[in-house]
Amino acid sequence: MTNSINMLLKPYIKKVNTNLVELIESKKPEKLYKYIGYQLGLYDASFEKVADVKGGKRLRASIPLIVTKHIGDGEFAMKASMALELFHNFTLIIDDIQDNDETRRGRPTLWKTIDTPQALNAALIAESLSFECAREACAHLPTKQAQKWYESFQMMTYKVFEGQHMDILFEKEEQVFSAQYIQMIMAKTACLIGQAFSCGFALQAKEDLRKFATNLKQIGEAAGMAFQIQDDILGLWGDPKKTGKPVGSDLRCHKKTLPVVHALESGSRSARQLILEAYQKDLTEKQTDSILNCLEVAGSKDFAFNQVREYTNKALTILDSTPIDSKLKEKLTEIIEALGHRES
Amino acid sequence: MTNSINMLLKPYIKKVNTNLVELIESKKPEKLYKYIGYQLGLYDASFEKVADVKGGKRLRASIPLIVTKHIGDGEFAMKASMALELFHNFTLIIDDIQDNDETRRGRPTLWKTIDTPQALNAALIAESLSFECAREACAHLPTKQAQKWYESFQMMTYKVFEGQHMDILFEKEEQVFSAQYIQMIMAKTACLIGQAFSCGFALQAKEDLRKFATNLKQIGEAAGMAFQIQDDILGLWGDPKKTGKPVGSDLRCHKKTLPVVHALESGSRSARQLILEAYQKDLTEKQTDSILNCLEVAGSKDFAFNQVREYTNKALTILDSTPIDSKLKEKLTEIIEALGHRES
Repeated sequence: MTNSINMLLKPYIKKVNTNLVELIESKKPEKLYKYIGYQLGLYDASFEKVADVKGGKRLRASIPLIVTKHIGDGEFAMKASMALELFHNFTLIIDDIQDNDETRRGRPTLWKTIDTPQALNAALIAESLSFECAREACAHLPTKQAQKWYESFQMMTYKVFEGQHMDILFEKEEQVFSAQYIQMIMAKTACLIGQAFSCGFALQAKEDLRKFATNLKQIGEAAGMAFQIQDDILGLWGDPKKTGKPVGSDLRCHKKTLPVVHALESGSRSARQLILEAYQKDLTEKQTDSILNCLEVAGSKDFAFNQVREYTNKALTILDSTPIDSKLKEKLTEIIEALGHRES
Repeated sequence: MTNSINMLLKPYIKKVNTNLVELIESKKPEKLYKYIGYQLGLYDASFEKVADVKGGKRLRASIPLIVTKHIGDGEFAMKASMALELFHNFTLIIDDIQDNDETRRGRPTLWKTIDTPQALNAALIAESLSFECAREACAHLPTKQAQKWYESFQMMTYKVFEGQHMDILFEKEEQVFSAQYIQMIMAKTACLIGQAFSCGFALQAKEDLRKFATNLKQIGEAAGMAFQIQDDILGLWGDPKKTGKPVGSDLRCHKKTLPVVHALESGSRSARQLILEAYQKDLTEKQTDSILNCLEVAGSKDFAFNQVREYTNKALTILDSTPIDSKLKEKLTEIIEALGHRES
């Protein structure tokens, strides 16, 4: 039985949260930074610190801590963790504004809690904080190496927004090809997870550790792809008790996730028509069931499952061929498998 | 007679625009970058390049070019110019979304032309471009100097968003003190102009030139304050033929600019009441006239004029005491005076 991803990351969450609170409380004007604290699940809607943090898995923050714990020198790792977590949350605030989403992780989204103009400011400040942490994370490196890593961190921002751009365009387009969809989630989601896997190595002062960063990046990107496609599967067939969302919830939001894109591309003419018509307006429960059935018949559910398996295998194959610490390999194997098997 | 600011900056606009177009056309996906081109006035609403660029004064881009033209080594200047202009335009896109403004420089704003989600993406990509240019602008420097400048550029982003945060909070507050207002425009507007004035020196490889960067920053910040307060004056008493806006246009938008803040703070009780009541709903022409009259009686027009003069004098005094190239001093004197006297 695979350990759940939440269980695997749990030991790191508290430390990450403590450091995030410290950072937020060191900045002024207080109010503005507490908005970011709310987004991170550290503060409630009255901007008081909460005991029960609702901040998600902290996947992007935990990976650098796990990696550096095994390979030694990890002074910088917490800064890198915070850079990634803040960047991720910056994109979530923006994403919620763009999609007009009113809830996230069971709470009102930030723009819904304060207002859109101030949520935008908070997002941009979160991005600035992320870059400040990124600068600090590489400050111990020889300059050229520091510049190289910082540049890779900065170039990642293009990828994420370009991915977001594609995502928004796809919503309006009738026909999206699965190859385009794959390109979009690679940019929007997998790149950042690639950074999370690689930075523990990329930020090492020793060249004989740093040299593995490229492999780790590829591992993280493949695992990130599996993670996102698994997310697509859960959005359609996830157990409502575990996901907290109704069956077919992504259909109700007219999302064109991988199974839907696949059915539009490869399904029968009638399947295609059914989906496109249903996506014109609010879906009835019956329509939701018909589409879900349609996706199974078209082989789109299997296709998505296969993609998760393929990307997971890709990540594991590269990991297997990378001669790093064996305990770390074991741990990363567990994480990669859990990302492709998660149920929530 | 003072040369107009537009006349003084005109020789640099074309070069800046050519470089911005080149940068935009070097990036993909094309569409996304053309949105930025539209914001910069380089493309029309069909995303075709325009002959008659409507991109504003390019104040922030021109200053580094003017400075480096006079003091020699300026290979890097165009990159710094673009970094500043792109950053400025990134904030304008965000500002228009936050304020729900539908026109800028006589054209529909970017969010109005495409939509808010895509305009947000374009803004964030413009910011990424700005930081890429900033990295390139300091690449020729010894590492420590490069890091120092880049850090100052990055720290400026906090200031700008913190200023924007205050600005939005002030809209909702009855009482804003002029000291708070001054703090807000220093963060939101003057910091970036300080960067524009200082970076030509800050980015010099020679220490005997670089040492003047601190003075130039203070000069630019003071000139930026005069520029913004002059903007406030034009928003109330500007000549509609020159500003392209009706008399009292800032009142119609319920803006709390410096003269209004001053009257609320120092005017009579009845003046205060008149403004606060009028700001509850759409203003009639008669109300607009009454408030303008009120502001004159309260001494708020004179107060704003005095502030422009004081900040202009501050900039000129520091410039006078800074032993840099005399031709550059003359040119910067002209620019600083023009910023405090502009009519559009």
